[in-house]
Amino acid sequence: MITLTSDFGLKDPYVAEMKGVILTINPKSILIDITHDIEKFSIRKAAFTLASAVPYFPDGTVHLAVVDPGVGTQRRALVIQARKGFFVGPDNGLLILAAQNLGIEHVYHLTNSKFMLPEVSNTFHGRDVFAPAAAFLEKGVQPTEFGPEIMDPIIPAFAQVKHSNGSLTGEILNIDGFGNIITNINEKDMLCKEGKTVNVELTSASLKLLFGKAYAEAKRKDPILLIGSHGFLEIALNQASAAEKFHVKAGDKIKVTVA
Amino acid sequence: MITLTSDFGLKDPYVAEMKGVILTINPKSILIDITHDIEKFSIRKAAFTLASAVPYFPDGTVHLAVVDPGVGTQRRALVIQARKGFFVGPDNGLLILAAQNLGIEHVYHLTNSKFMLPEVSNTFHGRDVFAPAAAFLEKGVQPTEFGPEIMDPIIPAFAQVKHSNGSLTGEILNIDGFGNIITNINEKDMLCKEGKTVNVELTSASLKLLFGKAYAEAKRKDPILLIGSHGFLEIALNQASAAEKFHVKAGDKIKVTVA
Amino acid sequence: MITLTSDFGLKDPYVAEMKGVILTINPKSILIDITHDIEKFSIRKAAFTLASAVPYFPDGTVHLAVVDPGVGTQRRALVIQARKGFFVGPDNGLLILAAQNLGIEHVYHLTNSKFMLPEVSNTFHGRDVFAPAAAFLEKGVQPTEFGPEIMDPIIPAFAQVKHSNGSLTGEILNIDGFGNIITNINEKDMLCKEGKTVNVELTSASLKLLFGKAYAEAKRKDPILLIGSHGFLEIALNQASAAEKFHVKAGDKIKVTVA
Repeated sequence: MITLTSDFGLKDPYVAEMKGVILTINPKSILIDITHDIEKFSIRKAAFTLASAVPYFPDGTVHLAVVDPGVGTQRRALVIQARKGFFVGPDNGLLILAAQNLGIEHVYHLTNSKFMLPEVSNTFHGRDVFAPAAAFLEKGVQPTEFGPEIMDPIIPAFAQVKHSNGSLTGEILNIDGFGNIITNINEKDMLCKEGKTVNVELTSASLKLLFGKAYAEAKRKDPILLIGSHGFLEIALNQASAAEKFHVKAGDKIKVTVA
Repeated sequence: MITLTSDFGLKDPYVAEMKGVILTINPKSILIDITHDIEKFSIRKAAFTLASAVPYFPDGTVHLAVVDPGVGTQRRALVIQARKGFFVGPDNGLLILAAQNLGIEHVYHLTNSKFMLPEVSNTFHGRDVFAPAAAFLEKGVQPTEFGPEIMDPIIPAFAQVKHSNGSLTGEILNIDGFGNIITNINEKDMLCKEGKTVNVELTSASLKLLFGKAYAEAKRKDPILLIGSHGFLEIALNQASAAEKFHVKAGDKIKVTVA
Repeated sequence: MITLTSDFGLKDPYVAEMKGVILTINPKSILIDITHDIEKFSIRKAAFTLASAVPYFPDGTVHLAVVDPGVGTQRRALVIQARKGFFVGPDNGLLILAAQNLGIEHVYHLTNSKFMLPEVSNTFHGRDVFAPAAAFLEKGVQPTEFGPEIMDPIIPAFAQVKHSNGSLTGEILNIDGFGNIITNINEKDMLCKEGKTVNVELTSASLKLLFGKAYAEAKRKDPILLIGSHGFLEIALNQASAAEKFHVKAGDKIKVTVA
């Protein structure tokens, strides 16, 4: 099974070309779109969307993602082996958050032209480099065959959470449609269990919040901290927009300390 | 085979999460999107779209539909066994029109947590409740295993046609892109065969129309009554917009009597 | 494998109905969307998109395309057998450019009602005529069984390139998102190899251009002629919009002569 994520949209033939390439190499591939409607070049948004979706797919799924403003430059191509799946895409931070969710084991620099189309354009590595690699991975080619292991993939700021002196510093990944503030701190990072009170520092406010389980544990329009349905820590108001109330946006820092 | 219908759009990971859940339970599922671009919370529009599409799918197909403004409240979850397929979704009227088209046999209240994800969120039953149920149904679990049979699913007004004294009272389901007025009266309901003249009462006009077979039986810009390509009675103008001419909208009543 | 291309959009049930029809005839079909977001009735744009995508699909793929402003009139329905695949759709020029890319061998007039739905509407041949034909083709029915061979399919102007006195006259197929001017002249048509200088006459300008291999062979904002990633000759500026600079649009003529 191969999932596809990109910012190509569905008006142009790009996504279909990637699928054609995959199906030519491996006609038995099952292809599932995560989304192709990522805002152009928004690596952060794509990374969050991918990270949210991948835990629901079967172990061993190959996740192909292409949001690639650096195509044609020296940016590397990656194959990532995670405990519960594989990732193929550019080395620009796009894959890391999702790969962390599935447990990163090895990162390979995709250089073996045996697993690329015979002619590689400068403008469309999704079709010429990444799609064939995903198809060969799914077909059973070992990750080690795609190129040398590397230790320094680009880890974007939005995939970094710093632990120090009993506090966690992360950042805001996304504001969802309800105004919930979704951070890059995931369940495993959290310092304490639900039921405790936690200090939260935003760029605009210092809050003392219950780390709870459900929005309804807060009074109407009151804030609460919880692990959202995508596995990330979020600040929410019960039936209102936390982002509006606290004037924050994606990319802003957040610091969490047990009270 | 499982079809999917929702108002989630394709920008967010929601649809992919549902698909991941299904494929984790049943990796052999064939997944076909009906649409995910239903106007948010528009149960009527989703019901019409679903009802239009389902007759074209093979017998035994599982139709999963999620337009679910009541998620997290006491609204029930349903599994419907119809003569020619199955339906899974919320008990808010969404499934009924389509299930009627395939012949409703039994309606079950989906309560058996064995067929749900281990953790059920309050906000996303599409992924946590409905998607797993659809996957297990397709895998061969009997409808009776999902929960008790119920006799009182919500039948929305738009799925009701009243017969009395030789007349039919229904409502307008949808205005299509050509301005054709599509009603909820289907072929089986109709009082007479094509070729007869029929009285039609709209909120804005009383008409005497030929119940015909093709738009072209009417003169240019003249109205005609026929069974449209989705199996529902519609009022059309030959090469013009009936909805504009008669000033009607979805939800308006319509009464039909044989002249 | 069957690909689908249309201008139906994904809000309405039309695409799902075509898929349901195909899967009822052949439940093992693998269905891949090229796009359904073609601008309504834009045969040229659909033809270009289809022609761009089809070379990436496995040999023998059936390409079903429906942009069909003439539905219900006398326009013919076609089955095209190409060297590397099959095409099904209306005889309005939509299929020709793509079929040329795969090598047209025979064109059949689709008339055999055995391979249509029992009732054929006047408004939706995508579902009633083309989808079943595509399903039966994939199932192994011989192209000759669909109807008589014809020699006069409609060849649209945008699929014609005229050779005369050592020059090529074609037209502009599409302006892409980068402002590259993509013509209908393909690699096989070209008069010379890369590295030569070529005279190009546009409606607005006469140019002497290098026929090169990569955008970067031109100085920044300078024009170059090359075969783009979809196999068609294009005029590009290095890092700027050629369409803006030369004030041309889809449908304009272009003449190419070796200098």
